[in-house]
Amino acid sequence: MDDCVLLAHGSGGKLSHDLLRDEIISVFGNPLLERMDDSAVLDIQGRIAFTTDSYVVTPIFFPGGNIGKIAMCGTINDLAVCGARPLYISVSLVIEEGLSIADLRVILRSMREVVDATGVSVVTGDTKVVNRGCADKLFINTSGLGIIPSGVNMTGVEVGDKVLVSGTLGDHSIAVMSKREGLEFDSPIESDCAPLNRLVASMLQASSQIHCMRDPTRGGLASTLNEIAQQARVGIRIEEDQIPVHEGVRAACELLGFDPLHMANEGKLIAFVAASEAERVLSKMRGHVFGSNAAIIGDVVKDHKGQVVMRTSLGSSRIVDMPVGDILPRIC
Amino acid sequence: MDDCVLLAHGSGGKLSHDLLRDEIISVFGNPLLERMDDSAVLDIQGRIAFTTDSYVVTPIFFPGGNIGKIAMCGTINDLAVCGARPLYISVSLVIEEGLSIADLRVILRSMREVVDATGVSVVTGDTKVVNRGCADKLFINTSGLGIIPSGVNMTGVEVGDKVLVSGTLGDHSIAVMSKREGLEFDSPIESDCAPLNRLVASMLQASSQIHCMRDPTRGGLASTLNEIAQQARVGIRIEEDQIPVHEGVRAACELLGFDPLHMANEGKLIAFVAASEAERVLSKMRGHVFGSNAAIIGDVVKDHKGQVVMRTSLGSSRIVDMPVGDILPRIC
Repeated sequence: MDDCVLLAHGSGGKLSHDLLRDEIISVFGNPLLERMDDSAVLDIQGRIAFTTDSYVVTPIFFPGGNIGKIAMCGTINDLAVCGARPLYISVSLVIEEGLSIADLRVILRSMREVVDATGVSVVTGDTKVVNRGCADKLFINTSGLGIIPSGVNMTGVEVGDKVLVSGTLGDHSIAVMSKREGLEFDSPIESDCAPLNRLVASMLQASSQIHCMRDPTRGGLASTLNEIAQQARVGIRIEEDQIPVHEGVRAACELLGFDPLHMANEGKLIAFVAASEAERVLSKMRGHVFGSNAAIIGDVVKDHKGQVVMRTSLGSSRIVDMPVGDILPRIC
Repeated sequence: MDDCVLLAHGSGGKLSHDLLRDEIISVFGNPLLERMDDSAVLDIQGRIAFTTDSYVVTPIFFPGGNIGKIAMCGTINDLAVCGARPLYISVSLVIEEGLSIADLRVILRSMREVVDATGVSVVTGDTKVVNRGCADKLFINTSGLGIIPSGVNMTGVEVGDKVLVSGTLGDHSIAVMSKREGLEFDSPIESDCAPLNRLVASMLQASSQIHCMRDPTRGGLASTLNEIAQQARVGIRIEEDQIPVHEGVRAACELLGFDPLHMANEGKLIAFVAASEAERVLSKMRGHVFGSNAAIIGDVVKDHKGQVVMRTSLGSSRIVDMPVGDILPRIC
């Protein structure tokens, strides 16, 4: 194998097959993938969740992860927050000619680690190579399939629900940006990039009164809560004091003029839970490695429908809008 | 809406939502997609085919199609040749900042036309925007789910099977390349880009003895037949005289030193059929708009296992290898 990916690796000819066999299928190896058919044939019964995401994060390596880890975690999390048990993942690579095979190996290896940690299988894929200057090192699309267990039925948010968040906000955005811009902080900030399927499974086991879950990625908590407030025609009230934010992220945001509520997360979820069960779910979350900083940050109200209102640390109230424009492009 | 896609359209904030609602969801509109959840929840029972492909073709518009039409047809065809009825498609866009909204509309409209012609639904998606110079106008990933009807069981190629091809080879590659390089031919060559699900359905209805199907995309007929010969440990013998190639494609290949067997196709399939049923399947194919030039081009033999041998027009025999290297990058 050469040191770099060449255009010919995308030809569909012999070099394509060598790259596939030696670098990709060998990493994800399982009988379904090894058939190398045009489609994977799967036996699934029941309600199926289906999701897709393309990942274009730059730089492709950052504190706490890389584009491969995000691509696996992000799609697993999209399935998990729908209540699905993630089962099958597709991996489609768009590689810029010249990417080092060594970097590709590290990225695929990270993806494999997520496979091992979560129990999903990579069952189908695709690899394209484009000329130098026509992409930025590597883009990854992952699509995923999961099965929603018959007992799981998230019926949508209700007035009175508590709003829970599984941990600190903004770590991913600040980690990527600090690497990209060469910023240094006293305590380095790592991406929170993590697969949440096991956390979700334990939450669903603890309570049947989880009405809705989401992962606040691009656009951050602010976008996710606004989407839900608008879709469900409810108001959401949150308490600034209760929202967990790492000291370093808070400092970086203040320095740079960013709002932690607008920052993308890659290993966090938001849950809407009936008030009577909120403490029980919270305690279950805190017992999990990816939920140790979980908190109840607000509730669903019948006032100010379609809006998110935050009581600030100073005691005043302000409307939390979706971010307008792109303050941090290519964060995922 | 602005005239061009801006970085802010990928932010996850208000502009992202506007682009999604006004330009994408409005085109593919259906209740599953309109929920805008992280995953689509589907009810499917049985054997499911799952496939993915990223499309990076350049230029994004070419005679006979565009990147959107290919992205829909390619994934539908990958499902169809596995015997599956295509049902659900995901669409993930990676857009280079500056792509005109007008071009995006034409491309999405083409995708919608394939949706209408095939009966699939676009149920989930993703849109990313990258800075100018970090992608090449537009890349599209589509993943697809289909259901394999209970009667369908393609058991793999057998010695004695006839090899059928659904029409002329090489049209897509030559159409894209002529546009890319500004070549002009006496009779313009159009891409064969087309959805084959209905052709496949009629073939499967005509015979239960179709042992294997493939679509010869990247790497062309040569790659596909070599893959099958190696996987099934059989020999494949084809007759050059029987292989349908448009006169214009043949002339272009001769002029440019290309082999039509190495050229990608986007609306063709190869089928391996028991000899006793081959004529019946052929006649069914010829009755379909996308199979009118179908032909029996060879058979499966027990000699020269793992190899494809062609009897040439001159009566000699030569081994047909996979293409080595990339003669025509970014054709799909």
